[in-house]
Parts: sequence; structure tokens; C-alpha cells
Amino acid sequence: MDYHAIDLHGKLSLISEKWSPRVVAEVNDYQVKLARIEGDFVWHRHDETDELFLVLSGEMTILFRDGEVTLREGEMYVVPRGIEHCPRAAAQCSILLLEPRGVRNTGDAGGERTAENDVWI
Amino acid sequence: MDYHAIDLHGKLSLISEKWSPRVVAEVNDYQVKLARIEGDFVWHRHDETDELFLVLSGEMTILFRDGEVTLREGEMYVVPRGIEHCPRAAAQCSILLLEPRGVRNTGDAGGERTAENDVWI
Repeated sequence: MDYHAIDLHGKLSLISEKWSPRVVAEVNDYQVKLARIEGDFVWHRHDETDELFLVLSGEMTILFRDGEVTLREGEMYVVPRGIEHCPRAAAQCSILLLEPRGVRNTGDAGGERTAENDVWI
Repeated sequence: MDYHAIDLHGKLSLISEKWSPRVVAEVNDYQVKLARIEGDFVWHRHDETDELFLVLSGEMTILFRDGEVTLREGEMYVVPRGIEHCPRAAAQCSILLLEPRGVRNTGDAGGERTAENDVWI
């Protein structure tokens, strides 16, 4: 057994690339990921799963086709499966994501913003 | 669609009872729960699932039969399925839990510390 705490801000300090989620833990077949984000991501959806966003520092907005939600430190939101969304951060922001193992960051959209999956830190 | 952020500390302020997890969100069939804890809980295990603990404020220790891990604000730990553990907090502590819907807080132990399940705030 490994009895070491997972320090989220310590793990975040190891991430330099933006929009590249890194896995820090698994709960059954779900993964807890951390990411640094800044700027606009791409519009996409995940038809097979909900997706949790929790802001650890900074502020982000999740755009929807008919609205948006802004998340500040200590705030979270669950994007329902199948709903198109576009994450955005005006300035540097650090987030925690929770979703099943294997979910692609760009969902149905794919393309050049697709990050390598299942990369642990 | 409900475009309201879930403010974890705001939700925590609605909880008075200790050791009674309250649901704040679902991700597919998983639930995000918040709890205020203080003192010793009971030894138990969950044979069917891992369980994530994330400390939002204060400090807690998870005792195992052969060791322990202490978690401070911003630190997390995943207790593997089937492993006996006993959560403890010397002073007031607020935590976020993640586990599949329907998991009983006292696991196999049951007893008087068993909280009502699936209570949302």
C-alpha cells in the first residue's frame, strides 16, 4: 500500500503544457485529471459520459450553445453527456476533471487540440 | 439546462451534522458528496468500490491496519476497495468524497454511525 497523499497543487506545478490533462488518481474506472488552461478550447461534446470540472485556482467559463457558466476557485460544474460545450479561461486557470478512463479531451471534435490520453503525473 | 456553478464552500455551510455526507452532484452513476468531520469514525471497508477523499479545509487522517495517511487542504487519497480504514479528524475538517451512487458511509460495519444515503444539498 502507498500511503502518500496526492497534493493537487504540487502535481499542478509539474504541468507546463496547457489543455493537456494529466491523470493523478483512479477511482475504479474513473480518472481524476488535472489541467492548466488558458485561452479558448474547441467546441465538442462527449456522447458517452458526463464530465466534471472543478476550479482549483483562477477562473474559467464553460460556454454552451444557449448559455454559459463561470467557475471560480472552489466551484464545480458537471457537463451532461451529449451537450456541446467550449471551455475558456481569460487568464491562467487550474482545474480538476473527473470522467471515465479513456475519454478524449476534444470529444467528438478531435483535431489538433487532442491531447495524449492516460498520461500520469 | 441549469447553468449555476456548485460552490463547494457555500454548500458546506449548509451542513451542520458531522459524518453525514451530502450529495452535491452526479457524474453518470457516481456521486460527489461533501461532509464535515471531527473525531473518530468507525473501522469499515467497501468491498465493491474504491473511495476518494479530498480535503477542502482542515486536516484528516485515514488509518489503515498497517499505516496511515494524513491529508491537508488540497490533498487527496483513494482508498482501494476492500481495504479496512478509519477516517479521523482531530479538529473540524471538510471533505469531498467521490464514489458510486448508493455506497453506505459505514461500509460493511453498519451500525449507529450509518448516515441516510442519497441526501442532496
